[in-house]
Amino acid sequence: MKVPKHFASDNFAGVHPDILKAIASANSGHYKAYGADKYTDAAIKKFHDHFGDRIDVYFVFGGTAANVLGLKMITESYHGIVCAESAHINVDECGAPEKFTGCKLLTVPSPDGKITVEQVSHFLSAFGVEHHNQPKVISITQTTEMGTVYTPEEIETLAAYAHQHDMLLHVDGARLANAAASLDLHLSDLTTDVGVDVLSFGGTKNGLMFGEAVIFFKRSLSKNFKYLRKQGMQLLSKMRFISAQFDAYLSNDLWLKNARHANAMAQLLASELEKIPTISITQKVQANAVFAIFPKEIIPTVQEKYYFYVWNEHSSEVRLMTSFDTTKKEVKGFVEAIKDTLKQK
Amino acid sequence: MKVPKHFASDNFAGVHPDILKAIASANSGHYKAYGADKYTDAAIKKFHDHFGDRIDVYFVFGGTAANVLGLKMITESYHGIVCAESAHINVDECGAPEKFTGCKLLTVPSPDGKITVEQVSHFLSAFGVEHHNQPKVISITQTTEMGTVYTPEEIETLAAYAHQHDMLLHVDGARLANAAASLDLHLSDLTTDVGVDVLSFGGTKNGLMFGEAVIFFKRSLSKNFKYLRKQGMQLLSKMRFISAQFDAYLSNDLWLKNARHANAMAQLLASELEKIPTISITQKVQANAVFAIFPKEIIPTVQEKYYFYVWNEHSSEVRLMTSFDTTKKEVKGFVEAIKDTLKQK
Amino acid sequence: MKVPKHFASDNFAGVHPDILKAIASANSGHYKAYGADKYTDAAIKKFHDHFGDRIDVYFVFGGTAANVLGLKMITESYHGIVCAESAHINVDECGAPEKFTGCKLLTVPSPDGKITVEQVSHFLSAFGVEHHNQPKVISITQTTEMGTVYTPEEIETLAAYAHQHDMLLHVDGARLANAAASLDLHLSDLTTDVGVDVLSFGGTKNGLMFGEAVIFFKRSLSKNFKYLRKQGMQLLSKMRFISAQFDAYLSNDLWLKNARHANAMAQLLASELEKIPTISITQKVQANAVFAIFPKEIIPTVQEKYYFYVWNEHSSEVRLMTSFDTTKKEVKGFVEAIKDTLKQK
Amino acid sequence: MKVPKHFASDNFAGVHPDILKAIASANSGHYKAYGADKYTDAAIKKFHDHFGDRIDVYFVFGGTAANVLGLKMITESYHGIVCAESAHINVDECGAPEKFTGCKLLTVPSPDGKITVEQVSHFLSAFGVEHHNQPKVISITQTTEMGTVYTPEEIETLAAYAHQHDMLLHVDGARLANAAASLDLHLSDLTTDVGVDVLSFGGTKNGLMFGEAVIFFKRSLSKNFKYLRKQGMQLLSKMRFISAQFDAYLSNDLWLKNARHANAMAQLLASELEKIPTISITQKVQANAVFAIFPKEIIPTVQEKYYFYVWNEHSSEVRLMTSFDTTKKEVKGFVEAIKDTLKQK
Repeated sequence: MKVPKHFASDNFAGVHPDILKAIASANSGHYKAYGADKYTDAAIKKFHDHFGDRIDVYFVFGGTAANVLGLKMITESYHGIVCAESAHINVDECGAPEKFTGCKLLTVPSPDGKITVEQVSHFLSAFGVEHHNQPKVISITQTTEMGTVYTPEEIETLAAYAHQHDMLLHVDGARLANAAASLDLHLSDLTTDVGVDVLSFGGTKNGLMFGEAVIFFKRSLSKNFKYLRKQGMQLLSKMRFISAQFDAYLSNDLWLKNARHANAMAQLLASELEKIPTISITQKVQANAVFAIFPKEIIPTVQEKYYFYVWNEHSSEVRLMTSFDTTKKEVKGFVEAIKDTLKQK
Repeated sequence: MKVPKHFASDNFAGVHPDILKAIASANSGHYKAYGADKYTDAAIKKFHDHFGDRIDVYFVFGGTAANVLGLKMITESYHGIVCAESAHINVDECGAPEKFTGCKLLTVPSPDGKITVEQVSHFLSAFGVEHHNQPKVISITQTTEMGTVYTPEEIETLAAYAHQHDMLLHVDGARLANAAASLDLHLSDLTTDVGVDVLSFGGTKNGLMFGEAVIFFKRSLSKNFKYLRKQGMQLLSKMRFISAQFDAYLSNDLWLKNARHANAMAQLLASELEKIPTISITQKVQANAVFAIFPKEIIPTVQEKYYFYVWNEHSSEVRLMTSFDTTKKEVKGFVEAIKDTLKQK
Repeated sequence: MKVPKHFASDNFAGVHPDILKAIASANSGHYKAYGADKYTDAAIKKFHDHFGDRIDVYFVFGGTAANVLGLKMITESYHGIVCAESAHINVDECGAPEKFTGCKLLTVPSPDGKITVEQVSHFLSAFGVEHHNQPKVISITQTTEMGTVYTPEEIETLAAYAHQHDMLLHVDGARLANAAASLDLHLSDLTTDVGVDVLSFGGTKNGLMFGEAVIFFKRSLSKNFKYLRKQGMQLLSKMRFISAQFDAYLSNDLWLKNARHANAMAQLLASELEKIPTISITQKVQANAVFAIFPKEIIPTVQEKYYFYVWNEHSSEVRLMTSFDTTKKEVKGFVEAIKDTLKQK
Repeated sequence: MKVPKHFASDNFAGVHPDILKAIASANSGHYKAYGADKYTDAAIKKFHDHFGDRIDVYFVFGGTAANVLGLKMITESYHGIVCAESAHINVDECGAPEKFTGCKLLTVPSPDGKITVEQVSHFLSAFGVEHHNQPKVISITQTTEMGTVYTPEEIETLAAYAHQHDMLLHVDGARLANAAASLDLHLSDLTTDVGVDVLSFGGTKNGLMFGEAVIFFKRSLSKNFKYLRKQGMQLLSKMRFISAQFDAYLSNDLWLKNARHANAMAQLLASELEKIPTISITQKVQANAVFAIFPKEIIPTVQEKYYFYVWNEHSSEVRLMTSFDTTKKEVKGFVEAIKDTLKQK
C-alpha cells in the first residue's frame, strides 16, 4: 500500500538518494564474496572514525538480527537479559531473542522507555541460585521506543552498574543517530566513551535500504562472532552492497543531517499539536517520535488523510513518527487535517 | 579483494543492470513496511505465473535462511532430514539447520551430488523407534553442489517415495534457474509438477543483489510461516527492495537468459579443457560448474591470473564456476593461461 | 544438611514407606527397558482409573521436565505462554521453558497466584501480527505457588476461554493432590472434567522419590510425544522404578491420605499462628502452605530451631510448607519456638 | 515384558541389592533438597577417591543427559563434535545433542567403534572458515558401542591431539567400569591420567537404578554447570537418592565386581560360541558384549528361548550383552538352545 502522507513509521520511507548512488557505484565488477572487498574495508574504516579504533564491527541483514546475535555473543543460555517491558527485543521480535539465545528477558515497567539501576537491582538476588536465570545483560534502546533519549550520564551509570556486577550493557541503536543529533553529540559520546559493550547500529530507519551493524567495544567480546553470524543466517554473500551503504551513511554527515531533519520535523509537529487544546503530548519529544492523546472521535477521519498508528486503544494515545524526508508541508497539512476534523466533530 | 578474472564463484559477480534498475524504480516514495506494498504484490504474481496459483511464497534475506526456515516449517525438532554429504545445508551453513530446527541431518555419500531412493530407504528402519530421529524430509540441491542436474523424473521418484512414507521433499534451488535452462524446461516442470513440497528459490548467484524466496507448494504447509520468518530474523522492513528484484528477475526471461549464458560458458570452458590431455573433467557439465583434475604443479601459477578454488587438495580436483556475466574472452584467456603454464612446467 | 525440624519445603522429606516398598518389589528380575514392562502397564491403568480412559500418560524424571515437555508438545517456537509472574515455569526453572520450546512467557501479576480470563485477554491483540509471539497456552499452577487453590469452575472458565481462542490450558500439578484433597474432589474433577488439555502430575512433593507424569487429555495432542521425551533427555531405561511408585501412589488413596495430612498440618499451623497478634496470615490457607508476616527480629532465632524460607525480605513475609510426614508435635514445637522468641525480644 | 532369560541388554536388569539397600538407608528423615545433604557429600568424596581431587562432579538423571549437558558445557552452538558413526550420541539419543547444544555431529565410520587421530584430522580444514562448524570436541565411547575397549595410550593420543588443536576430549563412559575391569586398571588410569576433559560416568547398566555423573577434569570447564543442569531439566530435588547409589557403587569395589562378572560372562559366552563352526565372532570380546554372525534360520527360534537383538539384518550379525547378574547357567542354557536349534534345522 502506497502511503504518500503519513506519520506512521520511519521505515515506510524509501532510500536516501546518496545511499542508492553508493549501491550503484559498488556494482562495478567482481569481488570476493562475504566481505573480502574494498567497500567493506572502507565502511569499517568509517566505523573506526566514528566509534574509535578498538571496536569490532560486523554487518548483518536487519535490526532484529543485530540485537539477537549481539546478545547471543555475550550470553549463555541460562542467562537473563534485563530490559524495558516496551523494548523492541521484548515485544517486536516475535521471540527471536529467546529462540536463538535461550535466555529469558527480565522486564521492568518503564513509562518513558528508560530503565534505571534501581530497577535492575531487583533481579540480582537471583545471582548464584541455580533455579533462576542469571542476569548478565542490561539492554537499553536508544532512542527509546517512547521517543526519549538516554543522556551519556544515564548510560554511563547503567554501564558502570553492569560491569560492577559482571554484567554487560547492550544498546539497541536502531535510532542512535537520532539520539546523537538530539543531544548534539558524537556517536562515540553515547557509546564508546560511556561504557557500552555491544551496540546494534541501524540505518534503515534513517535512509538505508537494509543492513545493520553489530559493534563490539571490546574485541574480547566478539571472538568467533563470524560463526554466529553465519549460523544466524545473516551473512550476505554480496556484502559490498551493505558496506557501500554504511560508507555513504557515515560520510559527509549524512546520518546526522537525516537524523537532524527527522528530529526537527518532530519538534515542529509537537509545537503545532501543543497549540491544540484537546490534544496533549504524553512523552518528551527528544527525537523523531511524538506521542500524544488525540480525541478518540477524530482518529479514523484523520487517518484517512494521514496514516498513523494508535499506540494505546484505551487512552487513544497515538504514536507519530517523522523520517529523514518528512516535509514541513506534510506536517502543516497533517495539523490542518486534525483541526478540520476537530471542527466537524 | 577485486577479482576481475576468475572462475571461483558465481556470487563474486555484481548485480545485473536490470535488477539494479528495478531497485531504483522501487525507490519512489513511502510504502507500508513488511511487504504490504504493490511491488511485493507484483512479485508474488510473477511467482504464480511461473509456479502456479496454488503456491505460497515468502521472501527472506538469503539462501541459508531460505533453506533453514523452509525446513523448520515442515519439521519437529525430533525429525531427521536426509541429504547428500556434500549438501550446502550440511557443509556450508555453519550448522544453522541444526541450531534453528533442532533436527539431525542424515547424510548419504554422493559422488555426483545426487541422492537416490535406495539411499534414503536405509534410514526408514528408524520409524517408530524413540531413540532415533524420525526421517521426515528428503532435501536435494538443484543444481547439485557438483554441478549436475536432477531430471524431472528423478525428482518425481524422490517426491513419490517421500510422500509414500509421510515425508516431504525439499529442494535447495539456489541454482534452479541453471537447471531449468540446462533441461530447457519451465521452473514448474522441476517443482510444482513433480511433487516438490518446499523450495528455496535463489537469484543471488544469477544476478540479484540479495533476497531469496521460500515457496510452499501446498498451502497447508505454510500456515504461520510469517511468524517463523520474523522469529528467524528474516523480515525486511523495506520489503519492496527484494520484491522489485524478483519481479524483474522473473520478467522478460531475465532469469533464463542469465542462466543460459552461465551454462553456455561452462560448456565452452569444458570443451576447451577436454582438449588438454593432462586435464580430466570429473563431473558431467550440466549447468554452470566444471569440475576437473588439474596437474597439481600448474594450479598456483594459473590462480594468480584467474582465481579459482581447489575442491580436493588430495586429488587436485578444482571447481570452476561461470556466472551470468562471464565472457568468452575470459574463458579463452583462462584456457590460454593454463596452456602457457603447462608449457613452462 | 540434615534438617530434622523445618517448614521449609515439602521436598526436604524422604520417601513414603509404601513407595519404597513398591520400588523394592519391582526389583524382581529382568524386564524390557523403556517402559515395556508390567509395572508400567499397571501404573498407566491406575492413571486411567483416576483420570479416565481417554488420556495419554508418559513418565519423565522431574517436574521441570514435565512442564517443559508438555508445553513443547503443544507449541511452536513463535508461540507465547501466558502464566502468573510467580509461576514455577517463570521463576524457578532457570529458563528451561524458553530454552527448550523457544516460546516467550507472557506474564501477569497475581498476588494470590491465580490468573484470570481478563488478564489473559490483554495478550490477544497480538493475534495475527507477525512481530509478536502468538498466545497459544494458558498455564496455571494447582495448587498455586501461593498455596491457593483453583476451583473447578475457575479452571473451566479458563479452559473455555482458551479453547474459544484456539489456545490450550496447561496445568502444573506439582501439588494437584493437595488441591483435590483441599476441595474433597476427584483428581478428574479438577482436570478431565473441566477442560484441561495437558497436566504435569507430580508426586515428589507428596512422598515419591522421583518421577513425574505428563498427561494429555486429548490423544491428538500427544502424538509423537515419545520422541520429545527421548530428545528431552527424560526417558528412564529402568522405567519400572518410576511406574511402581505411581502405581503405589495411586492405590489405596495413598496420594489422598498424604495430601490430606499435609493440608491438615497447614491448617493447624495457621490456626495457631492466627492466635499470635504480631503475626498475620497473608494468603488463604487452602493446601499445605502458610504465608505469613513475621516480626522481622524473630526470624533468625526461630530459623535456628525450625528452618523455613523468607519469601519477601522487604515485608518479612515467610513461606511455611508442611508435608506428608509433618507431625502435630513439630507444629506445636514450632509455634512454641515462635512464642518463646517473641517473649525474649 | 518380563524377560527372565536374555542377552539383549544390560539395562533389562534390575538394581543390585547393595544399591537398593543404600537407597533405603538414605530414606532417613528430612534433608535439604538439590544436593545439600550428607549423602551427596559422601558420594562426591568417593568420586574424588577414584578420579582425583581436582575434578568437579555433578549428578544428573540419565546417560543421554550426561552426554548432552557435558557437551553443551564445553561448546558454542557453532562448534562441531567429532564422533563415530555408531556413537550413542549420534544414533541413540533422538537428536538431543543437536537440539540442546545446536552443534553438528561430525561423524567418521568405525567398524570397531573406535576413532583415530587420522580420522579427526580430516575435519580440521574447517578451522577459521565461517561456513563450517568449527571442530571443538572429540567424543569417544568407552567401552565402545561394539564392545571394544580403548587403551590408555589410545585415549592419551586422542586427548593430546585434541588439546594441540584447541579441542577437548569427551568420553561417554556408560560402561567405563567394564573397560577398567577389562584392562585391570583404575578408573583414573582411563580418564584423569590420560587427558580426558569431560566424562559421562554411568552406572545404570551395571547395577544402579538411575542417575549418571558428569565429571569435569579441569574446574575451569565446569563453571556455571549447575545452571545448565537445572535448565537441562536434570536437577533432582531429592538428590540424596542418586548420591547414595553412587556412594555404594564406588565402595567395596562394587562397580568393579559387577563389571568383572559381566565381562567374564561375555568371555564364557564367546568361548562357547567359538566352538560352534557355523557361528563367527565379529568383534574382539573385551567387555560385556559379544558380536557374532548367527545362521539366519536359527535366530527366531533361539530368540523365543533367550531374547537378544539382531544388530545387522543383512549380515545376521547379533549383539549379545551380559550384565552384572548374568549366570553361568544362563550362558550354558543359551548355548544349548543354539545347538539344539542348529540340529533341528
